[in-house]
Amino acid sequence: MNVKSFDKSDFLNFENRYNALFFNSLSGIKNVCLIGTKDNEGQSNLAIFNSLIHIGSNPPLLGFMTRPDLVDRHTLQNILSTKEYTINLLVKGMEAKAHQTSARYPKSISEFDTCGLTETYLDDCNAPFVEESPVKIGMTFREKIDIQSNGTHLIVGEITKIQLPEFILNKDGFIDLAAVETIASSGVDAYYSVKLLARYQYAKANQALKKIKND
Amino acid sequence: MNVKSFDKSDFLNFENRYNALFFNSLSGIKNVCLIGTKDNEGQSNLAIFNSLIHIGSNPPLLGFMTRPDLVDRHTLQNILSTKEYTINLLVKGMEAKAHQTSARYPKSISEFDTCGLTETYLDDCNAPFVEESPVKIGMTFREKIDIQSNGTHLIVGEITKIQLPEFILNKDGFIDLAAVETIASSGVDAYYSVKLLARYQYAKANQALKKIKND
Repeated sequence: MNVKSFDKSDFLNFENRYNALFFNSLSGIKNVCLIGTKDNEGQSNLAIFNSLIHIGSNPPLLGFMTRPDLVDRHTLQNILSTKEYTINLLVKGMEAKAHQTSARYPKSISEFDTCGLTETYLDDCNAPFVEESPVKIGMTFREKIDIQSNGTHLIVGEITKIQLPEFILNKDGFIDLAAVETIASSGVDAYYSVKLLARYQYAKANQALKKIKND
Repeated sequence: MNVKSFDKSDFLNFENRYNALFFNSLSGIKNVCLIGTKDNEGQSNLAIFNSLIHIGSNPPLLGFMTRPDLVDRHTLQNILSTKEYTINLLVKGMEAKAHQTSARYPKSISEFDTCGLTETYLDDCNAPFVEESPVKIGMTFREKIDIQSNGTHLIVGEITKIQLPEFILNKDGFIDLAAVETIASSGVDAYYSVKLLARYQYAKANQALKKIKND
């Protein structure tokens, strides 16, 4: 297997588009979701993100990255003004419609309508959920953190509402996302199906590792 | 399909371990990697992380979350003192050994040795890489960002070195991680194989979406 090495002097010679594809796909298989928001006038917005990270379980916090100058600007503006948003996981079959939300639509156009996804609402959440997504998460804005190194922002929110299919929730609290065909992504344009290899017990220093039976 | 809904009053009744499994697996399919470091005395450390995010391509920046009170504390201490670390993607077959690095070993024990992974070095990087990982990324520390909401930290670093198999790098810069069986994770203990569904062209507002041929 031929290996190829790169250092900073090589990166500087990468053409812009090549550079973006290269570094976006280098860092491994990624999460992918749709974030739903509304502006203060009630205009819905939907955008695809692949930078969701788990920040904590107690309180339950999730983060994602935004670049205020790009296509996700409506999402950021809406979150900052309404403090509410939804996170909707993608499952197999949704990838083309979800990818299309990354096009630069004017603010007056709802990506729900133009990309063929269905707006839905849960209880007292004002932000729109995606009907086609089986795992729906309602969020309240908590923090906008500036990344000095490149001027991007980490948006931190608290989970306030969840809806998911009952059969994917295991007795121990594990949510079996593969059972509902949740997909993953890499780069800026690649989508993957996933298959559970194994779950392992909590690792201890002087004990052989055992698999967990997935029930 | 029966759906189940949860709100904040439900979360508060979750038992601790259930709560951790639930919220760690809720947020979708995640990245998984091994981070290699050394302390100032030359003691190697290796730890598994599932919170890697792409922060930017120019300069190339990656971030990951740490909790200073937990098992990843050696990683954080070493990065802050030496400013160097490595990110090593996991491929199929590495998951059990990688998971075992999450056990609480004393600082004098190298997880490379005790978990059966091989320490290797590239050029002038002082931090140890994982030989078994086909995608190796050398990092220089840039920022430690405090998350006020729960006292965790986002560690931001710049990519300074990369080694990968030549055959997974496409002409357009896309790195085909599935071709080398890169795996994904969810929760704190589940590992997944991945299979490419499709790549899509850059989405435009008034143009039908096309797939990209994977070369």
